[in-house]
This record gives sequence, structure tokens and C-alpha cells, in this order.
Amino acid sequence: MKIAVDAMGGDFGPRVTVEGAIKASQEYKIEVLVVGVEDLIKKEVDKTNHSRAKVAIVNASEAIGMGEGILSIRRKKKSSIRIGAQLVKDGEAEAFVSMGNTAAVVYISKKILGALKGVEKPALSLLVPTIKGLTLLIDVGANVNCRPHHLEQFAVMGHTFMTSVMGIKKPRVGLMSVGEEKTKGNELTKEAFERLQDSPINFIGNVEGKDTYSGKADVIVSDGFTGNVALKVSESVVETFSYFARTEIMKNFFAKIGLFLMKRNLKKIYKKVDYTEYGGAQLLGINGVCIIGHGRSNSNAVKNAIGLAKDFVLNKVQDKIQHDITELTHSLGQAEG
Amino acid sequence: MKIAVDAMGGDFGPRVTVEGAIKASQEYKIEVLVVGVEDLIKKEVDKTNHSRAKVAIVNASEAIGMGEGILSIRRKKKSSIRIGAQLVKDGEAEAFVSMGNTAAVVYISKKILGALKGVEKPALSLLVPTIKGLTLLIDVGANVNCRPHHLEQFAVMGHTFMTSVMGIKKPRVGLMSVGEEKTKGNELTKEAFERLQDSPINFIGNVEGKDTYSGKADVIVSDGFTGNVALKVSESVVETFSYFARTEIMKNFFAKIGLFLMKRNLKKIYKKVDYTEYGGAQLLGINGVCIIGHGRSNSNAVKNAIGLAKDFVLNKVQDKIQHDITELTHSLGQAEG
Repeated sequence: MKIAVDAMGGDFGPRVTVEGAIKASQEYKIEVLVVGVEDLIKKEVDKTNHSRAKVAIVNASEAIGMGEGILSIRRKKKSSIRIGAQLVKDGEAEAFVSMGNTAAVVYISKKILGALKGVEKPALSLLVPTIKGLTLLIDVGANVNCRPHHLEQFAVMGHTFMTSVMGIKKPRVGLMSVGEEKTKGNELTKEAFERLQDSPINFIGNVEGKDTYSGKADVIVSDGFTGNVALKVSESVVETFSYFARTEIMKNFFAKIGLFLMKRNLKKIYKKVDYTEYGGAQLLGINGVCIIGHGRSNSNAVKNAIGLAKDFVLNKVQDKIQHDITELTHSLGQAEG
Repeated sequence: MKIAVDAMGGDFGPRVTVEGAIKASQEYKIEVLVVGVEDLIKKEVDKTNHSRAKVAIVNASEAIGMGEGILSIRRKKKSSIRIGAQLVKDGEAEAFVSMGNTAAVVYISKKILGALKGVEKPALSLLVPTIKGLTLLIDVGANVNCRPHHLEQFAVMGHTFMTSVMGIKKPRVGLMSVGEEKTKGNELTKEAFERLQDSPINFIGNVEGKDTYSGKADVIVSDGFTGNVALKVSESVVETFSYFARTEIMKNFFAKIGLFLMKRNLKKIYKKVDYTEYGGAQLLGINGVCIIGHGRSNSNAVKNAIGLAKDFVLNKVQDKIQHDITELTHSLGQAEG
């Protein structure tokens, strides 16, 4: 199996992505095509223990920065993201993994790879840790304007991902809203509720923001605007809470000792809530496997993202999504026809 | 000053609301009209030290439960919420405070008190703790379907609240979106952005979910669906994080001692992040002062909510909102005319 990895993405660039790619090649016994500025990548490969790793470098002379806007994303024809996606398009790699600018990866992948047949809007999904395990949030930012039938497609794709990659037999799919009752929600979610009720998946109704990390649902569906806000608000809470904790604890001698005593346990908790541990976001519904890791990924997180891509390929997730979306479209056609 | 308090609301009912009302009367030297089932309230008043408190009981034979839907809310004509709002309408109280069913308080207050002139949608706002102080989120759930000009009115009302109650001279007003650039957002926020740019308030542009608790803005504007999800996701993060912490720490002897040593400090942090401490949500734009406390408020939180209502009255917030909304409508009329 060959997986293309964007070496230029992420907050730490080639230093971390190359190390992650090498680790992935060693651990998963796959070939990685590391895409980016050749000289930089070579240097990093030489620095790293790459025994038994199968690494090939694919040169890309341009890099897209984490904060770059859509205009410059379009202009850079030789960016590592574009060339990485093209490798998948050309059948030279079976998946593309990037820690780079999410908007850029989404935009370029959609453009170069296109959507699966029947998928109107490929969506970005992400596994987050909950009290009971992992829950998939979909969409977390690829589509800020959605219609009800888009949400229905997201639900189906989320369902397919959770069954085929995570091995959950009948994933409980919830719709993010402002109350559990069917009558609660905005115009978009109320109509989506009706559709989901009639769909072939295991729809458990509305879930609220407070259920996001409770494990009540295996998949939580929302438009990309709501999903993105929900995700980033979560980061904000953790950051602010940690800030308060640090400043408060540093004021007091005993509390400092207390902190020291629980340091190892706190690290474990952070690891648990740190979703970079779970491999990154998946661009579902696109005609090619595409995983987007968190910008602040370390080399282990990069390796995990590549591992997730490998699982996608091995489990033929693309075929299954294509199948399930076709079936959905078909059943809708029958119902409406 | 007379303030009406719903005794039947909140997770703990009269036991806590009556105690809070008495404390408020004692501390703020105001008269409280405690609304609810007379016998129950009397019992609680007798149990509590009410020396120097001015408490009058207003009988209301029905109570609306925390989970009741809109149909039964409408049916209960003698609910404590309805009678409390009516006291404000009739000029017998200057403000109404409830810890009850938020949807019920919003629905009934809108119906009985109506909106201020020019306000199309009264909105629910809430102060939340941030690294730098308090930030007002508006709307956190009163209006799930909004048009761009509604968001503009929310911005103005939030601005007025922060200047008149919180004493912030030029509050920084941000628009909740998925990226800082003007081009980022959904149809609603992009159009709202244009309007806010031209409005008389200090608009600082888009803020992202990650800025919610960073203190980047003094007011963060969103539709009620997004705001509600953001708020409840925040609760979910805190709950899940605490759960992980508890279970992880309880596994280890040293960590348990560590926890014991920092107990007092942790309590302080919880107090800081617990937004029931800040008095409750404000229903802005309604023709009467209406404060909705959190269901799980203890008697101190009830007292704080009543204190916030008192500040509203003393600072003539209603007049100021009316003034600022009229000015906005006027300036828009000129711009568009």
C-alpha cells in the first residue's frame, strides 16, 4: 500500500511530518510518498532512523501556510497539498494525509478528486473522546451552508464510517439541536429530523450540545458551521480551564505539591481528551481517501493519521460509502417517485 | 424597589428560591414578591431567618416543570411564571426573576410583556467567565432562526448591556463564525458582518469558537441555535473532563493525596467557571426586566440573579436599550432611505 503524506503541513513542518511518515512506514509496513520541498525532506530523512522504512520523496516546490486564504491556495499550483491529492487521483497513492491548512486540503481535494457519485457535499468528520468511547462529529467545517438532505447524507456517511472503520454494528446517529423533542431546532434541523426518521440508519433523534461528550450517540450530525463552532468552543473550554487551574494552583504551596503528585495522571487525562491521538479528521464522500490531521500533531499523531488512512483503504470505506449513498439516493428516489 | 421571584422554578424549587429571595431582600434592601404555591412558600419562609427581609407572597397555583413542552406551558394559565411576568406588566414589580424552564420564561415573557419598540426578536444573553474577565454571549437560545438584521440588533443590545450594567466603555463586539476573515462564515454571518461593519458599535469582526473563553471580545453575537449549542457543548466538556479526572485520579494513591492538597484551589476554579455565579441569563429587548437563572442555582445564585435584576433597574437598562435600538433603526432608515 502506498500513502502520500504532505510533508509541508502542520505547525512543525517536515521535522515532524517526515518522522511520522517514517514511523508509519515501519509500523504498518506500507510505503509512504512524502510530498514537499525535496531538500528539506531529504535532510529530515537523513536525521531520522529510517531502517526498514519505505519512503519515497515526491517534490513539490510550494507550501501552503496554515493561515493562507483561498486566493493564494488557488494560485499555488505546485503546492504539496495539490500534488499529494493528484497522486491519489492518478492512482499512484491510495490515500492522502495532511496536517496542513484544513480549508486548503478540503478545497483542493474536492477540486482534484471530486465527490463520490451521489454525494453532494463531502463532509469533514472527526472522532472525539467521550465518557463511553469515541463519537464521530460530522460535519466539523467543510460545509457552512447546508440543506436538510445534506445532513441526511452526512448521517449516512458517518454511519458507514463507524461500522466499517470502528466496527460498531448499529451506530446510534443523533442530530445536533437545542432540545431533544422533535419540535426543537431550527428550520434546517427540523426538516433534517423528518428525513432522518425515514432513513435506513439507526437515528436516535435530536441530541443537545451537552451530549457531545457524553457518549449518547456514536455519530452526531450537524452543518459544518455548527460543528466547527462546537469543536472550537470545546478547545476554548479546555484551554481556559487549564489556564485557571495553572494560575490558581501556582498561588499555593500545597496545591503545587498536589499538582506534582498527580502529574502522571493528568498527563493520561490530557492524552485521553487530546483528539490528535485519534488520527485526525476524515474528508468523507470524496473520491479518494483523505485524512486531515491537527496542525499541532507531533510525529506520533502524524503516524496515527497515516494509520487511519491505511484502515480506510483496508476496510474499503470508499466503496461502502459509495454503496450506502447510492442506496439512500435510490430509496429516496422510490419514496419520492 | 420590588422584584418578583418565581418560587417554583429551578431544580430545587421553593427550598432554594425562597432562601435566595430572602437573602436578596436583606442584602440589597429591596422588596421581593415571591410567586408560587402559597403554602409551600410560607413553610420555607418560616424555616428561614427572614429578619429585616421584605417578602410578600403572591399565590400561583400551578408550576411549570423543567422539561415541560410548549403545549402544557400554554395551557397552564396560573403558572408562577405567568403570574410573575404579569406583575411586571401591571407595574407591581420592576423585574421578574426565574430559575425555571428557560423556554417557558422566554415564551411567556415575550407574550405577556412584548418586545421593546423596534426590537424584532428579544434575545437571551449570558455572561461567561473568560481568561480576561466576563464575556456576554447573545443569543444563547431564544431565537433559533435568525436573519442578519436580528444579529445586528443582538449586537446593539449586548453592547448596551455591557456599557450600562458592566461599565465597559467601548465593548468589543465579535460575531461568532468559523474563521476571522470577513469571507469566512455562513450566509447568515456573512451578511451580518456587512451590517455590523456599518453599525455604530465597536465591531471587531469575526471571532471563532476558540475565542469564546479567551476574552478577545466583550460581546459575542450569534443566532440562538449556534449560541445554545456553544454553551451546552461547553458544559459537556467540563463534565467529561471532570469525569475523566475523577476516575483517573481515584486509581492512584499519590494522585488522591494530590487532589486533597489542591481541593480548596479547585473549588475556587470551579467557582470561577461556574456561570451560575454571575446571576443568570438576561432576556434583552423585552418590555420589562427579566432574568433567568440556571436551574441548578443554589440560594446564593438565586440571590445573585435578583441582584442582577436590581442592577438592570437601577441602571435603566431598558431605557438605554430602547434608545440604542431606536437610534440603530433610525440610522438604518436614513442609510436605506
